[in-house]
Amino acid sequence: MSSTTPPSPPSSPFARLSYATRAPSFPNPTARRLLSLASSKRTNLCLSVDVTSTQLLLDIADAAGPYICALKTHADIVEDFDFETTVGGEKGLKAVAEKNGFVIFEDRKFADIGNTVHLQYSSGIHHISSWADFVTAHSVPGPGIVSGLAKAAKPLGRGVILLAEMSSKGNLCDEMYRKKTWEMARENRDVVVGFIGMQRYFESASDSAPDSAAESDATDFLYLTPGVSLTASSDGLGQQYRTPEDVVETSGCDFIIVGRGIYAGVEEHLDGGVLSEKGKEMIRRRCEEYRKRGWDAYERRIGKL
Amino acid sequence: MSSTTPPSPPSSPFARLSYATRAPSFPNPTARRLLSLASSKRTNLCLSVDVTSTQLLLDIADAAGPYICALKTHADIVEDFDFETTVGGEKGLKAVAEKNGFVIFEDRKFADIGNTVHLQYSSGIHHISSWADFVTAHSVPGPGIVSGLAKAAKPLGRGVILLAEMSSKGNLCDEMYRKKTWEMARENRDVVVGFIGMQRYFESASDSAPDSAAESDATDFLYLTPGVSLTASSDGLGQQYRTPEDVVETSGCDFIIVGRGIYAGVEEHLDGGVLSEKGKEMIRRRCEEYRKRGWDAYERRIGKL
Repeated sequence: MSSTTPPSPPSSPFARLSYATRAPSFPNPTARRLLSLASSKRTNLCLSVDVTSTQLLLDIADAAGPYICALKTHADIVEDFDFETTVGGEKGLKAVAEKNGFVIFEDRKFADIGNTVHLQYSSGIHHISSWADFVTAHSVPGPGIVSGLAKAAKPLGRGVILLAEMSSKGNLCDEMYRKKTWEMARENRDVVVGFIGMQRYFESASDSAPDSAAESDATDFLYLTPGVSLTASSDGLGQQYRTPEDVVETSGCDFIIVGRGIYAGVEEHLDGGVLSEKGKEMIRRRCEEYRKRGWDAYERRIGKL
Repeated sequence: MSSTTPPSPPSSPFARLSYATRAPSFPNPTARRLLSLASSKRTNLCLSVDVTSTQLLLDIADAAGPYICALKTHADIVEDFDFETTVGGEKGLKAVAEKNGFVIFEDRKFADIGNTVHLQYSSGIHHISSWADFVTAHSVPGPGIVSGLAKAAKPLGRGVILLAEMSSKGNLCDEMYRKKTWEMARENRDVVVGFIGMQRYFESASDSAPDSAAESDATDFLYLTPGVSLTASSDGLGQQYRTPEDVVETSGCDFIIVGRGIYAGVEEHLDGGVLSEKGKEMIRRRCEEYRKRGWDAYERRIGKL
């Protein structure tokens, strides 16, 4: 424990275990890979890149690569999306991810019935299932959405992350919504690896926090939290921001998702659409700042600091 | 009224008015256009086309054109999507829609924070805001999603349809969820034209059905209902089907959304990827069957049959 007065550690027994210790209990191979990458690279930073140019996406991903365990994409906002150039080819995002050791998660927020999400995930221009290690999905359509995604995800060992909650103001994810989402995940743990959420919610079907991780029906999930910034604040479109310490130490979440906090102002460092060395250095410096804040918070949480 | 024993008409005063009578109360120009098309073409049929080929999408749209008031798309499942060929060019979907007189609604089910949906709606390969008259969105992120879409929708007079409920088994849209969705719509009626829903829910902020449409805070919205089939049934991925009479007469919804019921088996009528005359005839015949069932149900509802 740190010598300053820390926030109370979360009551979840899983939150007190290291990433490496938790990994083997996940039936999904990509969940295990993410935990292993986090552990070996000493980072719980997931960079969210919402840019509309392929070149900039790849440049940011490559600069951030050594500091992150995951990269969150919105392929559908990329204006010049081309399957080979943007994701699949030898200089595409998949190759950048393999070179740097991070997983890609396409934040598609699937939200349709099973048959439709299956097509959206595997077909179309984007062919998401062929390159994204994880995809996000809303639970609002009911369990059919997980079955629809699982048809394409399971043969490839891919994972689904459910939205248990959102960081935006006035969102409709109340406790009953979260509880049902959690139950949907527990029934599909081979595909659903965890949640986008603001805090750890339920660990067992009985809804009370178990005394130990070994308690029979307690189930571990990954929690990834968006809306993270070095200082608490809000934007003009309903998004609220929290600090890495809030998210990891106080709320027991596993991965911090940071977007504009890392690449804001990057357009000032473009030279013919290509990110300059100065721009890359800016990305690296900010990534390292978030990486350290997130990692230290994690180590305090598990009692190593 | 029909001479057989009809189901009780819905209590909503709006459900008893004709499309033409209701049109002027909608501040959104595309909502007025849809009501006007329905009225003049005598159809409340919205065809949902979930196919992965541009040619087939356009062939089905053109065959169905005279029978429908709206066409629902999933542009993101089209494997050979090309902006000009698929939607924007002189033979694209927008031109087919103008020729036949129907509106296009891209069933994107936006479900992210305001800043992201704004980019997803206006950017990317699909440039949805440039060709889709309506888009669907989930209310789960809170009011920011409407603000984000409105930034691109309002200057073009486009409309947003919120998901108040889903037809899939075990969906999480409970009454509180629907109520908050309705309130979000009422506060943004210039952009939000109505709901995807299974029934009319609330007509006023006080939550009780008003006695007349003139009652001060009663607000009219369009209700579009998916999962419609000539016979009630269910598929294997959690989708449940209801009849046009259930949807329009009993539940007071305005538009029936029919998909596989109209184009199932269409692949048997392809000649080098092009829909044969026999295939087009099949589409026309099935469209007319649904059109008549939906229209008769509507006329009984408003007391004209």
